[in-house]
Amino acid sequence: MLRVDLVIRGCMILTMGEAGLVRDGVIAVKDGLLAYVGRMIEAPSFEADTIIDGSGKIAMPGLVNCHTHAAMSLFRGVAEDKPLDVWLRETIWPLESKLRREDIYYGALLSCIEMIRSGTTCFSDMYFHEDMVARAAMEAGLRCVLSSGIIDAGHKTLGRILLREAVKIAREYHGVSDRVFVMLGPHALYSCSLDLLRKVRERAEELNVGVHIHLAESERDSANIRSIHGRSEVDLLGEVGLLGPRLLAAHCIHISDGDIVLMAKHGVKVAYNPVSNMKLASGIPRIKDLLDAGVVVGLGTDGPASNNSLDMFETMKFAALLQKARYGDPRVLPAKKVVEMATIDGARALGLDGLIGSLEAGKKADIILVDINKPHLKPIHDVYAALVYSARGSDVDTVIVDGRVLMENRRVKTVDEAEVMRRAEEKAYNLLSRRSVARGIARKILKI
Amino acid sequence: MLRVDLVIRGCMILTMGEAGLVRDGVIAVKDGLLAYVGRMIEAPSFEADTIIDGSGKIAMPGLVNCHTHAAMSLFRGVAEDKPLDVWLRETIWPLESKLRREDIYYGALLSCIEMIRSGTTCFSDMYFHEDMVARAAMEAGLRCVLSSGIIDAGHKTLGRILLREAVKIAREYHGVSDRVFVMLGPHALYSCSLDLLRKVRERAEELNVGVHIHLAESERDSANIRSIHGRSEVDLLGEVGLLGPRLLAAHCIHISDGDIVLMAKHGVKVAYNPVSNMKLASGIPRIKDLLDAGVVVGLGTDGPASNNSLDMFETMKFAALLQKARYGDPRVLPAKKVVEMATIDGARALGLDGLIGSLEAGKKADIILVDINKPHLKPIHDVYAALVYSARGSDVDTVIVDGRVLMENRRVKTVDEAEVMRRAEEKAYNLLSRRSVARGIARKILKI
Repeated sequence: MLRVDLVIRGCMILTMGEAGLVRDGVIAVKDGLLAYVGRMIEAPSFEADTIIDGSGKIAMPGLVNCHTHAAMSLFRGVAEDKPLDVWLRETIWPLESKLRREDIYYGALLSCIEMIRSGTTCFSDMYFHEDMVARAAMEAGLRCVLSSGIIDAGHKTLGRILLREAVKIAREYHGVSDRVFVMLGPHALYSCSLDLLRKVRERAEELNVGVHIHLAESERDSANIRSIHGRSEVDLLGEVGLLGPRLLAAHCIHISDGDIVLMAKHGVKVAYNPVSNMKLASGIPRIKDLLDAGVVVGLGTDGPASNNSLDMFETMKFAALLQKARYGDPRVLPAKKVVEMATIDGARALGLDGLIGSLEAGKKADIILVDINKPHLKPIHDVYAALVYSARGSDVDTVIVDGRVLMENRRVKTVDEAEVMRRAEEKAYNLLSRRSVARGIARKILKI
Repeated sequence: MLRVDLVIRGCMILTMGEAGLVRDGVIAVKDGLLAYVGRMIEAPSFEADTIIDGSGKIAMPGLVNCHTHAAMSLFRGVAEDKPLDVWLRETIWPLESKLRREDIYYGALLSCIEMIRSGTTCFSDMYFHEDMVARAAMEAGLRCVLSSGIIDAGHKTLGRILLREAVKIAREYHGVSDRVFVMLGPHALYSCSLDLLRKVRERAEELNVGVHIHLAESERDSANIRSIHGRSEVDLLGEVGLLGPRLLAAHCIHISDGDIVLMAKHGVKVAYNPVSNMKLASGIPRIKDLLDAGVVVGLGTDGPASNNSLDMFETMKFAALLQKARYGDPRVLPAKKVVEMATIDGARALGLDGLIGSLEAGKKADIILVDINKPHLKPIHDVYAALVYSARGSDVDTVIVDGRVLMENRRVKTVDEAEVMRRAEEKAYNLLSRRSVARGIARKILKI
């Protein structure tokens, strides 16, 4: 009789590792790690305080959201159906300039609840005051990768201040816990000078952390950059020394064949955000070509203001279908590959595949149970297709991170949902009422 | 004190009619009809046996699914990520040739439960043995429009048999109830001869019913038809006399500017199926151009085997985003228009806007309540955006058709869900086990 902390019995297991799909499986967790993952019939006897009945459920690795701005839940539904630049300049930036640290905390906490409720166990965030996002994630019990946003937009002082803040947060959090990881987050090539990007690369090397950037998202910005520098965005990243296996590039829509070769050669990782790309009409990234070239691609939702959801099950469906439509071929991105992108490939994109992304003994116990006893999931002829094409985030029944049960029977156990909804809503409405003031302050900031 | 049957108090009402959005509203239902829809403060006092507390909820018209094949839920997940013709020829047609009437009944009933649980109150179905679909819809309590599938595919006898069956079902159901309506369902121009289509038109005129067809779904089939007949599919429909306001055309992807003008001129109605179009890589319909030309466009899920979901909330999001991506403009298909397409425009497409599609006194009481007290829907800055971009079918709390409560607090009251899931699954697995036999029979049928 082996003594462990938690056992899940009788479920089908999508390991997303070498064992593939295990029917009638059992999972044992000890000290936050997976102690056993396999068939019940071959398993040793376990003794545990917590035993979860997994019958009628699929156990799979918690989903990995590679690109979001969690605190932007406060802006969900503000200024809809607008072009990206109008949306940013007239609404989002003026509002962001008025954000207080507490706003970010409650916005991120609201998003953490949404992520737990839809099966995400690890998210990669880029925003300001990321220590507030860390606080929210720690409280909610999620695993996260923080990228402090860095931007100069022609204002050297601004870049210096934000880089200093990013380095400070990196020093504070990097390597302290297995639950919070750090990258530096230079916003994009159109909002960061090459000089700033070089400094970011130097700091990232010193700190031994990765870099997370928006790359080739907007056709107009990409064209602008090409006309100013005479080179593509990917080329420019090479010039400042940022191309490499620890670069996480979100979007990557307006790129050439040559760019893809370069990205593959340097092992650059991509975060594919199909819903945001469609909603903002940014264009359709060539994910099939990136995958064919050997590039690792994870999935992201982007921020809740440009999606407007953090449901990675929804993102899986959009991810698959957008590529089929893009290439005019229903065979492109089959369901199983999409589940890989949402789990093990996402973990690879974040450099965390040694810890998470598959259910294999020795890895972290980040597990979700999906309830398949639902009319819209019956009959199940193909498990991967059921998860990608039929399941919704609301089918997730149980969420476990680091061996700790964050949600059970759809009840979140770590935070008071009603209270967080109330506070976040209050913060959002309060922020909007400060909007006219915000415009003035935004102008002031841009005059630094 | 006015005596009514049912009252919903304290909800926000999206009437989708002239009254627009009503805050703090009340809805009164009597004899299956809406007796009052308006502000609480202006409403008379009502007395009713059933009083539903609508606080924290949005009341809106039940969603209208303009194009599906409900019984195909049995095939959900069979042969995924395949090209349309391979999928049809190698899997679906052989399986369909083996379908028994009971299979269709249980497949449709499973789909009815899925539709109720995701807020659809009226669906337009095309399949074989539609009397079985009628039976399922009546039991579940849904409103439906039945189109018996008609096809000859070079076999005159087959066409004659199926047309006779369709006419028989039309005679049996047409005008008998306000819950079941009838159209004739010639499958498509590539599977029906012009002679058969002419006969369909004659029968439809005699019976005074509409016609429901797949139009210009596949690029290859559309090109084939053009090369055989030297004209577009839309032109050919004109030639056989089917262009008119009672023609419901599903898909309409491979059409020209001239076709659009012709469709608008004749008042043809369109069913837009974004998820299926993407999943099968059929192409992207020019919905914006159709709308600009004045064509009425409703939304459809298509069958659960090519989607693989009947969730119209998901379809609303795909509908909006696919058009934004198609036209490279985030302003295309704003959220409010998409909600119209899923409600009142859908009703128009089916010729039922006198009865359903909006919450206005005198219309049928087909109402859904959406629970907005959820983390992923907070804060609500824009109700239409919340419904299209953030809500999921699982947020529907209560469903009412004809004044009868089909679901309350997410509990379906009309059918035994567990039993239907069990029976449908059994039928599906049994059907698959008959597959090798099915191939033989399919061959026999094609040799008629």
